[in-house]
Amino acid sequence: MHYSTIVIGDELLIGQVTDTNSGWIARHLTPFGWVPDGVQVVSDEADAITAAIDRAFAQSDVVLMTGGLGPTKDDITKATLCAYFGGEMRLDESVRENVDRIFARRGLTMNTLTAGQAMVPSSCRVLQNEVGTAPIMWFERDGKVLVSMPGVPHETQTMMERAVIPQLLRRFHSSDHLAFRNFVVVEVPESELALRLEDFERALPQGLHLAYLPNQGVVRLRLTGLANDGAWLEREMESQSARLVALLGDDLVATDDKPLAQIAGERLRERGLTLATAESCTGGNVAHEITLVAGSSDYFRGAVVAYANEVKRDVLGVDDDALMRYGAVSQPVVEQMVAGACRALHTDCAVATSGIAGPGGGTDEKPVGTVWIAVRCCDKTVSRCYRFAGGRSRVIDQATTRALIMLVKSLL
Amino acid sequence: MHYSTIVIGDELLIGQVTDTNSGWIARHLTPFGWVPDGVQVVSDEADAITAAIDRAFAQSDVVLMTGGLGPTKDDITKATLCAYFGGEMRLDESVRENVDRIFARRGLTMNTLTAGQAMVPSSCRVLQNEVGTAPIMWFERDGKVLVSMPGVPHETQTMMERAVIPQLLRRFHSSDHLAFRNFVVVEVPESELALRLEDFERALPQGLHLAYLPNQGVVRLRLTGLANDGAWLEREMESQSARLVALLGDDLVATDDKPLAQIAGERLRERGLTLATAESCTGGNVAHEITLVAGSSDYFRGAVVAYANEVKRDVLGVDDDALMRYGAVSQPVVEQMVAGACRALHTDCAVATSGIAGPGGGTDEKPVGTVWIAVRCCDKTVSRCYRFAGGRSRVIDQATTRALIMLVKSLL
Repeated sequence: MHYSTIVIGDELLIGQVTDTNSGWIARHLTPFGWVPDGVQVVSDEADAITAAIDRAFAQSDVVLMTGGLGPTKDDITKATLCAYFGGEMRLDESVRENVDRIFARRGLTMNTLTAGQAMVPSSCRVLQNEVGTAPIMWFERDGKVLVSMPGVPHETQTMMERAVIPQLLRRFHSSDHLAFRNFVVVEVPESELALRLEDFERALPQGLHLAYLPNQGVVRLRLTGLANDGAWLEREMESQSARLVALLGDDLVATDDKPLAQIAGERLRERGLTLATAESCTGGNVAHEITLVAGSSDYFRGAVVAYANEVKRDVLGVDDDALMRYGAVSQPVVEQMVAGACRALHTDCAVATSGIAGPGGGTDEKPVGTVWIAVRCCDKTVSRCYRFAGGRSRVIDQATTRALIMLVKSLL
Repeated sequence: MHYSTIVIGDELLIGQVTDTNSGWIARHLTPFGWVPDGVQVVSDEADAITAAIDRAFAQSDVVLMTGGLGPTKDDITKATLCAYFGGEMRLDESVRENVDRIFARRGLTMNTLTAGQAMVPSSCRVLQNEVGTAPIMWFERDGKVLVSMPGVPHETQTMMERAVIPQLLRRFHSSDHLAFRNFVVVEVPESELALRLEDFERALPQGLHLAYLPNQGVVRLRLTGLANDGAWLEREMESQSARLVALLGDDLVATDDKPLAQIAGERLRERGLTLATAESCTGGNVAHEITLVAGSSDYFRGAVVAYANEVKRDVLGVDDDALMRYGAVSQPVVEQMVAGACRALHTDCAVATSGIAGPGGGTDEKPVGTVWIAVRCCDKTVSRCYRFAGGRSRVIDQATTRALIMLVKSLL
């Protein structure tokens, strides 16, 4: 199936906000074999929107549209869609009730602007937005479909998963049932993984498909299934997932699509363990990733960012001898840092990093990008040296991801 | 002047990479009164590229194109442009020398793939890419211009500023000279700033223009000038900048467009001061922002992320009495944290944060989003309470930005 995406919004066009919806949509439709023909970013103007729809329908049978539906500007988008698909604007009671419900939950009262959100073109079918006030509108003409969704990423993403993707698949694949399972694999190169799963993929029954999303030492696998027989699909998804889990072994770290920091956090919580970080080159970014997870205060006690050697010595107890003999970027120092973090912050586990993020500070022996990482968990320490490519922020990013991977693996 | 942007790349279309070039281009052309008609993201296919160019020229006289020029795929883009604008592919010696020079600098040798980068359509004028191997190509036909640039953001941005923007302005405004100055203003709402600068803006001579780019407590102002008389322009830019600096007073924190952490870092370095952070709700993100700046080890010594109250007490010396009486999210605690950071890490200055990032943990008195921030600089402490809206990561982001703003202001 081919589709086009239209992203509406002056704020996107002038670069005040970056569009992430179109990428999200693509990542979530690709596993079903859907192919994006193009993305258009257009202004909040009727002519621009109409022209974009014409262009999109000229190449694709499905058009997914996000944005242009906030309380201050949905007039234009809705009127344009109404003019395009015919009919007239009507008050939709179910949308009005939904806006009411969401406002009540947030302790707000509806005003005339928000009441306007309940007006929709009579030519559309409304998909209730369960997490926001802007309705999702499904238009259909001559076998072609346009779905208009809000611009707020969280709303579009939630409702795509809950309603839009399942309905699109049902509409265009005549398959009544859809299922997916996620698998997060770490430290196996994509090519090696593909080789290991070759036979598994070949033996998948019709309707089931495995997709790879690799990124920095992590490969996210998504098994999707489409079928008319829901019971059959459920059984197949279960048994194929079990086969996949067996093939992935210890390289599989989660069967949900979630961040590494959350996977580590869940393992810590389950085992009643506490965590600290001791960071040099990552400068607090590992702690930042860990604390982005809601509820992380259950297991995360704190971090010491030890940029200066005196901080490594005074707060983490790294000995001067190791610093002088091996340098700050070395296995002995990073192992002392991780032990010092457990001691100073009274934790069971810790992660430590020490490296050269650049652009300065590199030597022949330890070029820019050299990073030592150690993880200590219940008195057992593992450490490893990496050489990352790229500029300063890329090195910091990669070191952060690798530190989290090592932490997750230590918590098996 | 109206323009359209075309972004080429399968990796963008399938959502593996997010396009940031189109937004950057818009933010840097808007100050000159240029209006974006639309952005198209298309695949690395000749037909898709040709169709996108047709659509773009149908609405705009200028088309800016990024991507499709890496060593493995520039064949398609260049062949498509050559077919579109006519002529034939030819070897450009200046490009070949540029590739040679850049490879020598990186210690690499050219292979057949990279040698191909020196092939360009004879119908284009080459703008030398000073920071990469892919040439920038300027095409012109019937008074319309298309500029093809690489997809690497750093290359496109650098060369837009150095060559493409100046040449576009000269071509379409018949003005030989272009100048701009940046001003970073903190803690003044955009509306209040606009009021304060109303007379200044009205009195600006023809050719000079002031643009506002507001974001989270920071307004970046850009004064741009276009004129035929370079000497006059230089004098006007100087005198208007001086007037603007006087009007902005202490609210102006930099006359270069750079991150807050870098502005703070330069002030610390100038004054020979050292810095630490003590973070609760920001979880290390302030330290991360500070250490993203190259050379930050000159003044940044380290951080203590004190998520658990015991860490606040044991490492930062916050007293139990204050924690019990006022709670962790309070003025006394955040002021003790900042003093404790200076003491524990032996620094002149420190930043501390303590707040409720959510989604849990809020109370009637201290709802989610409540954050206390303190900055200590050479024995002087200032502290302030904020109430931020949005989800967990938004609260962390805003608290980080506000902490950096307070630090910059304390270093006046």
